[in-house]
Amino acid sequence: MRIIAAQINPTVGDFEGNYHKILTWIDSARTQNAQIVAFPELSLCGYPPEDLLLHKDFVAKSEEYIPKLAKASKGMAVIVGLVRKAPLSGEKPICNSAAIFYDGELLGFHDKWLLPTYDVFDERRYFEPGTTIRTWPLFGKKVAVMICEDIWQHAGFVDWTKYLKDPITDLTKLKPDILINISASPYHFDKVSQRMQVCAKSASTLHCPVILCCQVGGNDQLVFDGFSMYVDGKGSLRKLAGGFVEEEMLIDDSAELPTVQSKQDPIKDLFDALVLGVRDYFFKQGFTKACLGLSGGIDSALCACIATEALGKENVLALAMPSRFSSESSIVDAKKLVENLGIHFQIISIEKEFTSFLDTLEPYFTAMPMDTTEENLQARIRGMLLMAFSNKLGYLVISPANKSESAVGYSTLYGDMCGGLAAISDVTKTQVYQLAKFINREKEIIPISTMEKAPSAELRPNQKDIDTLPDYDTLDKIIQAYVEEYLSPEQICKKYNFSNELVDRIVFMIHKAEYKRRQAPPGIRVSKKAFRVGRQFPIVQKWK
Amino acid sequence: MRIIAAQINPTVGDFEGNYHKILTWIDSARTQNAQIVAFPELSLCGYPPEDLLLHKDFVAKSEEYIPKLAKASKGMAVIVGLVRKAPLSGEKPICNSAAIFYDGELLGFHDKWLLPTYDVFDERRYFEPGTTIRTWPLFGKKVAVMICEDIWQHAGFVDWTKYLKDPITDLTKLKPDILINISASPYHFDKVSQRMQVCAKSASTLHCPVILCCQVGGNDQLVFDGFSMYVDGKGSLRKLAGGFVEEEMLIDDSAELPTVQSKQDPIKDLFDALVLGVRDYFFKQGFTKACLGLSGGIDSALCACIATEALGKENVLALAMPSRFSSESSIVDAKKLVENLGIHFQIISIEKEFTSFLDTLEPYFTAMPMDTTEENLQARIRGMLLMAFSNKLGYLVISPANKSESAVGYSTLYGDMCGGLAAISDVTKTQVYQLAKFINREKEIIPISTMEKAPSAELRPNQKDIDTLPDYDTLDKIIQAYVEEYLSPEQICKKYNFSNELVDRIVFMIHKAEYKRRQAPPGIRVSKKAFRVGRQFPIVQKWK
Repeated sequence: MRIIAAQINPTVGDFEGNYHKILTWIDSARTQNAQIVAFPELSLCGYPPEDLLLHKDFVAKSEEYIPKLAKASKGMAVIVGLVRKAPLSGEKPICNSAAIFYDGELLGFHDKWLLPTYDVFDERRYFEPGTTIRTWPLFGKKVAVMICEDIWQHAGFVDWTKYLKDPITDLTKLKPDILINISASPYHFDKVSQRMQVCAKSASTLHCPVILCCQVGGNDQLVFDGFSMYVDGKGSLRKLAGGFVEEEMLIDDSAELPTVQSKQDPIKDLFDALVLGVRDYFFKQGFTKACLGLSGGIDSALCACIATEALGKENVLALAMPSRFSSESSIVDAKKLVENLGIHFQIISIEKEFTSFLDTLEPYFTAMPMDTTEENLQARIRGMLLMAFSNKLGYLVISPANKSESAVGYSTLYGDMCGGLAAISDVTKTQVYQLAKFINREKEIIPISTMEKAPSAELRPNQKDIDTLPDYDTLDKIIQAYVEEYLSPEQICKKYNFSNELVDRIVFMIHKAEYKRRQAPPGIRVSKKAFRVGRQFPIVQKWK
Repeated sequence: MRIIAAQINPTVGDFEGNYHKILTWIDSARTQNAQIVAFPELSLCGYPPEDLLLHKDFVAKSEEYIPKLAKASKGMAVIVGLVRKAPLSGEKPICNSAAIFYDGELLGFHDKWLLPTYDVFDERRYFEPGTTIRTWPLFGKKVAVMICEDIWQHAGFVDWTKYLKDPITDLTKLKPDILINISASPYHFDKVSQRMQVCAKSASTLHCPVILCCQVGGNDQLVFDGFSMYVDGKGSLRKLAGGFVEEEMLIDDSAELPTVQSKQDPIKDLFDALVLGVRDYFFKQGFTKACLGLSGGIDSALCACIATEALGKENVLALAMPSRFSSESSIVDAKKLVENLGIHFQIISIEKEFTSFLDTLEPYFTAMPMDTTEENLQARIRGMLLMAFSNKLGYLVISPANKSESAVGYSTLYGDMCGGLAAISDVTKTQVYQLAKFINREKEIIPISTMEKAPSAELRPNQKDIDTLPDYDTLDKIIQAYVEEYLSPEQICKKYNFSNELVDRIVFMIHKAEYKRRQAPPGIRVSKKAFRVGRQFPIVQKWK
């Protein structure tokens, strides 16, 4: 049997566009003599549609395409993920379904059983779970169809959840010849190996091959990395589609395929995820041009590299906006980077505006010492200049705040936190350096001096980040343990032999900075637990 | 039997503080010879705790208080809402429970059956539902205990949901003498009448009285209005606690009580909700002072009144920040309001900063016409000045953007959207006028000229809101229909006889402004459907 996993990049709510993309890919599959072509979870409406699902005309629109898709399946089988009204009266009125079409007809649906409701997922908010499983007789074989989470419980890879049912166990009795799982599984650091284990576990239990057909592309804060895969009945990987690109993965299950070793480079994947996240965030909204501030530091340098890769050098404008506290070397470094990337560049002093604000405020702050107020003024003037370029010339501003800074609030609200997209807000400072090394793997793009100097916001004389923060290696360990792993402060102290005082202080800072993060631009989720998306903490609380 | 519904105001995560409050109220109940005292849903940890629930030490901390609470129940019965580990293996590991204590012992728990997962509620994210119901023999009576949503399905007041079970129906067979429902039911416009219907419906079915014990207070974006109530076995209201205040509501079920007519004034309730929301947002975080910009317009005037009521006039600082486009009358109106309220006031021209920015940007924008860029510059300079006062002097900034403006993006990101709290972001312009009238009910506080002039942002010569928006009556109807009622554009046109072009344009604007709202300060939810909290829409989408 010849099967194509159509790893497509749909746009949320773009029914007509997604439908035409599906048609094109069906045609292409037909020319390759594929018998079955499968499309990802909710690919007709795009994933995640969020509260658009609560609009009745959204669901009705989805159902309008069902007969059209049936018609398009002439001579073959087509599997498409879509939302539809729940067939039976249940707690929720709609289902997350896979429609199975064959030779011009709708054969039926598989409704997703396991509805993830944790982290970035809130499927119990919308969907009624399915309760039946069957196989579909296609081209002389018994084909089972499932949706994403349906196969994850069986491998034990679910979070904060233990579903009462396991569709894989139920399916075993039906002895399928192959299982096709259509997914919209968001990327996070090193996720591919998890997916391989999940597929291998189901394949081993069912003694049949498993095809995982994945969505690719960025939708809002989530990036879907693709990497569709084909695992044989013994759980060995036989085919792995590309990451971060649309791809037709053709499987001929009668062919003898060698075992494939997935050789993921996690830092390359991370870079590709950020680039795809930026590109789709821009292009799917109709933006083509980015501007950003270039401080001479490593965070903004990394953002400039990502933007250049995502949008093209001719579409990136960098502004260096020195104040009286900026070092000469910062401008030199910024210039070097700009030359290496070939992007547009302007130097705009903020001294005049800074002086105006200081003069205006002087009568109200008489005899009060300089403090973060004056530091924030500088960051905010820079934010205003960037936003002026955005408003007047149509640039979308990229904010350079990284995850380590976001965690502890080491950034200026309405200052360096200005922007339409926070490209690296889920990237720790440790990863920022790893990415910079990756970018420089062949030649120096980010100046070595940028990478080697001590991190500084340069908002007061001789300021260094470590004046007020622990070194980033320590900080990132605490953030990872507290935010991603939910360890208690006591457990963190024990794990790393850190002092109670240090861990308590950082944990306190993490909670205290919640109010800033609530107003941060959307970021691109690349870790198991990102701020904002998939993480809901109160601002007003006295826990820590 | 003498029962006290202890309508308390807990703080999220403040176990020790909430526990001591509960102890104090138990003691007070004892001195009043109450036999039972009930505390609201999750009152030990505060509601809503959100992802704090995912920290194992948070749940462990809750369970530490169970024996302490048992001890405190000497000689009486005490019912407390708290989180605990789920007793049986289920999909989720914790329960939203009511602990029932009697005379020093823990009798047992009622675990919430119906877990709302819609709008602002995401209880399926955390909790395993309960499955058993019983009555508790207390003082010779059969007392049933339920939690909030448990009784709402029976009256049909649930959203996007039809639970497969109805605990009230199950309870009927047990013939309880009284039902005590402990709640954390957030306020929205005119909610009390809904709650009365819900209690009446359960009481009528069960043929027994129902006591609703409600949380009061603001936690983050939610305001809990209190209004605990006692409904007799025929469904008639016999007692109604106060709104927006802590209160012990004592019920003696042997006493003959007259029927109570609830005389809610929805606009007064709305004002009280906003005041309580502001007060608790400030005080629970340790802030005492607010500052805000005063434009001479009605939105900022209303915010000043709310802040004054919430924090006291000595704790409110208003800044008038005129630009070249501000009218003389705006300053006059601002001054009048400030005098009427007795709050602090400064006038700070933004001309110097505005000119600096224009000069700096001139080389890059040569020969380009003035547009929103220059309007936003003014709004952002004002935002920066307010934030400087905040940073230097400890004020929390209140943003004056209202719901009508937020809906269509008629506000400046990082400008008038600056602040720690958007006090009226869920109040439509129509309601802004109603609230202003309410504030002026006895004497002129908000100047009549402020109320009578055509709304204008005064960011360019002779600007009026209706230059680019329909009149607010029309706009608010469309927003309400689309955002709160989920009507389709076609349905809205039909309902109000509006043109397709108008409705489509506003709906497009609502979706397009999602990116601004994502960075808005938290607001106080006072409607059935607020932006941000309880509403999750993608920024990147092509639905509308």
